[in-house]
Amino acid sequence: MDRIVEFWNAVNARDWDAVRELLHPDVVALWPQSRERAMGREAFVAFESAYPGDWTLSLVLAHADVGGGASRIDFTVDGTTVPAATFFGFDSAGRIDSIEEYWPEPYDVPAGGEGRLERY
Amino acid sequence: MDRIVEFWNAVNARDWDAVRELLHPDVVALWPQSRERAMGREAFVAFESAYPGDWTLSLVLAHADVGGGASRIDFTVDGTTVPAATFFGFDSAGRIDSIEEYWPEPYDVPAGGEGRLERY
Repeated sequence: MDRIVEFWNAVNARDWDAVRELLHPDVVALWPQSRERAMGREAFVAFESAYPGDWTLSLVLAHADVGGGASRIDFTVDGTTVPAATFFGFDSAGRIDSIEEYWPEPYDVPAGGEGRLERY
Repeated sequence: MDRIVEFWNAVNARDWDAVRELLHPDVVALWPQSRERAMGREAFVAFESAYPGDWTLSLVLAHADVGGGASRIDFTVDGTTVPAATFFGFDSAGRIDSIEEYWPEPYDVPAGGEGRLERY
Protein backbone atom coordinates (compact mmCIF):
# COMPACT_ATOMS: atom_id res chain seq x y z
CA MET A 1 0.00 0.00 0.00
CA ASP A 2 2.88 2.39 0.78
CA ARG A 3 4.15 1.97 -2.76
CA ILE A 4 0.78 2.94 -4.21
CA VAL A 5 0.57 5.97 -1.93
CA GLU A 6 4.09 6.99 -2.98
CA PHE A 7 3.20 6.49 -6.63
CA TRP A 8 0.15 8.74 -6.55
CA ASN A 9 1.92 11.33 -4.42
CA ALA A 10 4.72 11.45 -6.98
CA VAL A 11 2.31 11.68 -9.92
CA ASN A 12 0.31 14.42 -8.22
CA ALA A 13 3.54 16.32 -7.51
CA ARG A 14 4.73 15.89 -11.12
CA ASP A 15 7.86 14.37 -9.62
CA TRP A 16 8.64 12.21 -12.62
CA ASP A 17 12.00 11.06 -11.29
CA ALA A 18 10.25 9.71 -8.20
CA VAL A 19 7.69 8.03 -10.46
CA ARG A 20 10.52 6.45 -12.46
CA GLU A 21 12.11 5.05 -9.30
CA LEU A 22 8.87 3.26 -8.42
CA LEU A 23 8.44 1.69 -11.85
CA HIS A 24 10.12 -1.30 -13.44
CA PRO A 25 11.83 -0.17 -16.68
CA ASP A 26 9.60 -2.55 -18.62
CA VAL A 27 6.35 -1.71 -16.86
CA VAL A 28 3.25 -2.38 -18.96
CA ALA A 29 0.36 0.04 -18.43
CA LEU A 30 -3.03 -0.81 -19.90
CA TRP A 31 -6.23 1.18 -20.25
CA PRO A 32 -8.52 -1.66 -21.31
CA GLN A 33 -11.60 0.44 -22.00
CA SER A 34 -9.94 2.17 -24.95
CA ARG A 35 -7.39 -0.58 -25.53
CA GLU A 36 -4.55 1.90 -25.07
CA ARG A 37 -1.22 0.98 -23.54
CA ALA A 38 2.18 2.35 -22.59
CA MET A 39 5.05 -0.11 -22.94
CA GLY A 40 7.85 0.77 -20.56
CA ARG A 41 8.61 3.39 -17.97
CA GLU A 42 9.58 6.16 -20.39
CA ALA A 43 6.42 5.71 -22.46
CA PHE A 44 4.37 5.87 -19.28
CA VAL A 45 6.09 8.97 -17.95
CA ALA A 46 5.92 10.66 -21.36
CA PHE A 47 2.18 10.13 -21.43
CA GLU A 48 1.48 11.15 -17.85
CA SER A 49 3.77 14.18 -17.85
CA ALA A 50 2.12 15.55 -20.99
CA TYR A 51 -1.43 15.02 -19.74
CA PRO A 52 -3.35 18.18 -20.64
CA GLY A 53 -5.42 20.39 -18.41
CA ASP A 54 -5.18 21.72 -14.90
CA TRP A 55 -5.40 18.41 -13.03
CA THR A 56 -4.95 17.10 -9.53
CA LEU A 57 -5.72 13.77 -7.96
CA SER A 58 -6.80 12.57 -4.57
CA LEU A 59 -6.17 9.05 -3.31
CA VAL A 60 -9.39 7.61 -1.86
CA LEU A 61 -8.16 4.17 -0.82
CA ALA A 62 -5.39 1.68 -1.51
CA HIS A 63 -4.78 -1.92 -0.54
CA ALA A 64 -1.85 -4.11 -1.43
CA ASP A 65 -0.04 -7.31 -0.64
CA VAL A 66 3.41 -8.46 -1.67
CA GLY A 67 2.42 -9.12 -5.27
CA GLY A 68 0.40 -6.05 -6.05
CA GLY A 69 -2.52 -3.89 -5.07
CA ALA A 70 -5.22 -1.52 -6.17
CA SER A 71 -6.37 2.03 -5.57
CA ARG A 72 -9.28 4.33 -6.06
CA ILE A 73 -8.42 7.89 -6.96
CA ASP A 74 -10.58 10.90 -7.67
CA PHE A 75 -9.11 12.79 -10.60
CA THR A 76 -10.05 16.42 -11.03
CA VAL A 77 -9.34 18.16 -14.31
CA ASP A 78 -10.57 21.63 -15.18
CA GLY A 79 -13.10 21.49 -12.34
CA THR A 80 -14.62 18.08 -13.07
CA THR A 81 -13.91 15.13 -10.76
CA VAL A 82 -14.11 11.54 -11.94
CA PRO A 83 -13.14 8.25 -10.26
CA ALA A 84 -10.51 5.83 -11.44
CA ALA A 85 -9.75 2.27 -10.34
CA THR A 86 -6.15 1.17 -10.82
CA PHE A 87 -4.56 -2.25 -10.33
CA PHE A 88 -0.82 -2.59 -9.79
CA GLY A 89 1.52 -5.55 -9.98
CA PHE A 90 4.83 -5.52 -8.09
CA ASP A 91 8.00 -7.35 -9.02
CA SER A 92 10.14 -9.18 -6.45
CA ALA A 93 12.11 -5.99 -5.78
CA GLY A 94 8.91 -4.09 -5.06
CA ARG A 95 8.81 -2.07 -8.23
CA ILE A 96 5.54 -1.57 -10.11
CA ASP A 97 5.71 -3.77 -13.20
CA SER A 98 2.09 -3.63 -14.34
CA ILE A 99 -0.67 -1.04 -14.24
CA GLU A 100 -4.25 -1.58 -15.38
CA GLU A 101 -6.50 1.41 -15.10
CA TYR A 102 -10.26 1.88 -15.45
CA TRP A 103 -12.27 5.07 -15.74
CA PRO A 104 -15.84 3.95 -14.99
CA GLU A 105 -18.50 6.32 -16.28
CA PRO A 106 -21.99 6.82 -14.87
CA TYR A 107 -24.76 4.71 -16.38
CA ASP A 108 -28.50 4.35 -15.92
CA VAL A 109 -29.91 1.48 -13.92
CA PRO A 110 -29.79 -1.46 -16.35
CA ALA A 111 -33.03 -2.32 -18.17
CA GLY A 112 -35.02 -4.71 -16.00
CA GLY A 113 -33.03 -3.71 -12.93
CA GLU A 114 -35.29 -0.88 -11.80
CA GLY A 115 -36.33 -1.25 -8.18
CA ARG A 116 -33.99 -4.15 -7.44
CA LEU A 117 -31.61 -1.92 -5.47
CA GLU A 118 -31.95 1.30 -3.50
CA ARG A 119 -30.70 4.49 -5.14
CA TYR A 120 -28.54 7.03 -3.36
CA MET B 1 -6.81 -12.01 -0.65
CA ASP B 2 -8.10 -15.41 0.56
CA ARG B 3 -11.30 -13.77 1.71
CA ILE B 4 -11.88 -12.24 -1.72
CA VAL B 5 -11.20 -15.57 -3.43
CA GLU B 6 -13.64 -17.28 -1.04
CA PHE B 7 -16.22 -14.58 -1.67
CA TRP B 8 -16.18 -14.92 -5.45
CA ASN B 9 -16.06 -18.71 -5.26
CA ALA B 10 -19.14 -18.65 -3.05
CA VAL B 11 -20.99 -16.20 -5.32
CA ASN B 12 -20.11 -18.23 -8.39
CA ALA B 13 -21.34 -21.40 -6.65
CA ARG B 14 -24.58 -19.65 -5.56
CA ASP B 15 -23.63 -20.73 -2.05
CA TRP B 16 -25.47 -17.89 -0.36
CA ASP B 17 -24.90 -19.22 3.14
CA ALA B 18 -21.16 -19.14 2.51
CA VAL B 19 -21.53 -15.60 1.16
CA ARG B 20 -23.43 -14.60 4.30
CA GLU B 21 -20.64 -15.96 6.52
CA LEU B 22 -18.11 -13.73 4.76
CA LEU B 23 -20.20 -10.58 5.11
CA HIS B 24 -20.77 -8.28 8.06
CA PRO B 25 -24.52 -8.11 8.77
CA ASP B 26 -24.43 -4.37 8.08
CA VAL B 27 -22.28 -4.52 4.95
CA VAL B 28 -22.80 -1.57 2.61
CA ALA B 29 -22.50 -2.35 -1.10
CA LEU B 30 -22.30 0.52 -3.57
CA TRP B 31 -22.47 0.64 -7.35
CA PRO B 32 -21.40 4.26 -7.81
CA GLN B 33 -21.93 4.44 -11.56
CA SER B 34 -25.71 4.04 -11.21
CA ARG B 35 -25.81 5.24 -7.59
CA GLU B 36 -27.37 1.96 -6.51
CA ARG B 37 -26.71 0.36 -3.14
CA ALA B 38 -27.57 -2.61 -0.95
CA MET B 39 -27.72 -1.88 2.76
CA GLY B 40 -26.96 -5.01 4.76
CA ARG B 41 -26.16 -8.63 4.10
CA GLU B 42 -29.69 -9.75 3.35
CA ALA B 43 -30.27 -6.97 0.84
CA PHE B 44 -27.00 -7.88 -0.86
CA VAL B 45 -27.77 -11.60 -1.00
CA ALA B 46 -31.33 -10.93 -2.18
CA PHE B 47 -29.98 -8.86 -5.07
CA GLU B 48 -27.18 -11.22 -6.06
CA SER B 49 -29.23 -14.42 -5.74
CA ALA B 50 -31.95 -13.02 -8.00
CA TYR B 51 -29.55 -11.77 -10.65
CA PRO B 52 -31.07 -12.75 -13.99
CA GLY B 53 -29.50 -14.67 -16.84
CA ASP B 54 -27.18 -17.60 -17.19
CA TRP B 55 -24.10 -16.10 -15.55
CA THR B 56 -20.72 -17.20 -14.34
CA LEU B 57 -17.69 -15.28 -13.13
CA SER B 58 -13.97 -15.75 -13.27
CA LEU B 59 -11.58 -14.13 -10.82
CA VAL B 60 -8.73 -12.47 -12.71
CA LEU B 61 -6.75 -11.06 -9.80
CA ALA B 62 -7.12 -10.09 -6.16
CA HIS B 63 -4.93 -8.26 -3.69
CA ALA B 64 -5.66 -7.46 -0.06
CA ASP B 65 -4.15 -6.35 3.21
CA VAL B 66 -5.61 -6.45 6.69
CA GLY B 67 -8.05 -3.61 6.07
CA GLY B 68 -9.42 -4.57 2.67
CA GLY B 69 -8.60 -5.38 -0.89
CA ALA B 70 -9.72 -5.35 -4.49
CA SER B 71 -10.38 -7.73 -7.32
CA ARG B 72 -10.89 -7.89 -11.03
CA ILE B 73 -13.46 -10.37 -12.24
CA ASP B 74 -14.68 -11.24 -15.70
CA PHE B 75 -18.45 -11.70 -15.59
CA THR B 76 -20.10 -13.70 -18.34
CA VAL B 77 -23.84 -13.50 -18.80
CA ASP B 78 -25.69 -15.04 -21.73
CA GLY B 79 -22.43 -15.34 -23.67
CA THR B 80 -21.11 -11.82 -23.14
CA THR B 81 -18.08 -11.22 -20.89
CA VAL B 82 -17.47 -7.89 -19.19
CA PRO B 83 -14.93 -6.83 -16.56
CA ALA B 84 -15.70 -5.57 -13.08
CA ALA B 85 -13.46 -3.91 -10.51
CA THR B 86 -14.52 -4.41 -6.90
CA PHE B 87 -13.13 -2.88 -3.72
CA PHE B 88 -13.69 -4.55 -0.34
CA GLY B 89 -13.31 -3.31 3.20
CA PHE B 90 -12.76 -5.78 6.05
CA ASP B 91 -13.74 -5.33 9.68
CA SER B 92 -11.45 -6.30 12.56
CA ALA B 93 -12.90 -9.83 12.54
CA GLY B 94 -12.09 -10.20 8.86
CA ARG B 95 -15.63 -9.94 7.56
CA ILE B 96 -16.39 -7.89 4.47
CA ASP B 97 -18.10 -4.72 5.65
CA SER B 98 -18.00 -2.62 2.48
CA ILE B 99 -18.16 -3.36 -1.22
CA GLU B 100 -17.77 -0.81 -4.00
CA GLU B 101 -18.11 -2.16 -7.50
CA TYR B 102 -17.45 -0.68 -10.93
CA TRP B 103 -18.44 -1.97 -14.35
CA PRO B 104 -16.21 -0.01 -16.73
CA GLU B 105 -17.49 0.09 -20.29
CA PRO B 106 -15.42 0.50 -23.45
CA TYR B 107 -14.91 4.04 -24.72
CA ASP B 108 -13.19 5.68 -27.66
CA VAL B 109 -9.81 7.31 -27.23
CA PRO B 110 -10.62 10.69 -25.66
CA ALA B 111 -10.76 13.68 -28.00
CA GLY B 112 -7.28 15.12 -28.32
CA GLY B 113 -5.76 11.89 -27.06
CA GLU B 114 -5.32 10.22 -30.44
CA GLY B 115 -1.77 9.01 -30.97
CA ARG B 116 -0.61 9.70 -27.43
CA LEU B 117 -0.67 6.00 -26.53
CA GLU B 118 -0.29 2.76 -28.46
CA ARG B 119 -3.45 0.75 -29.17
CA TYR B 120 -3.70 -2.97 -28.63
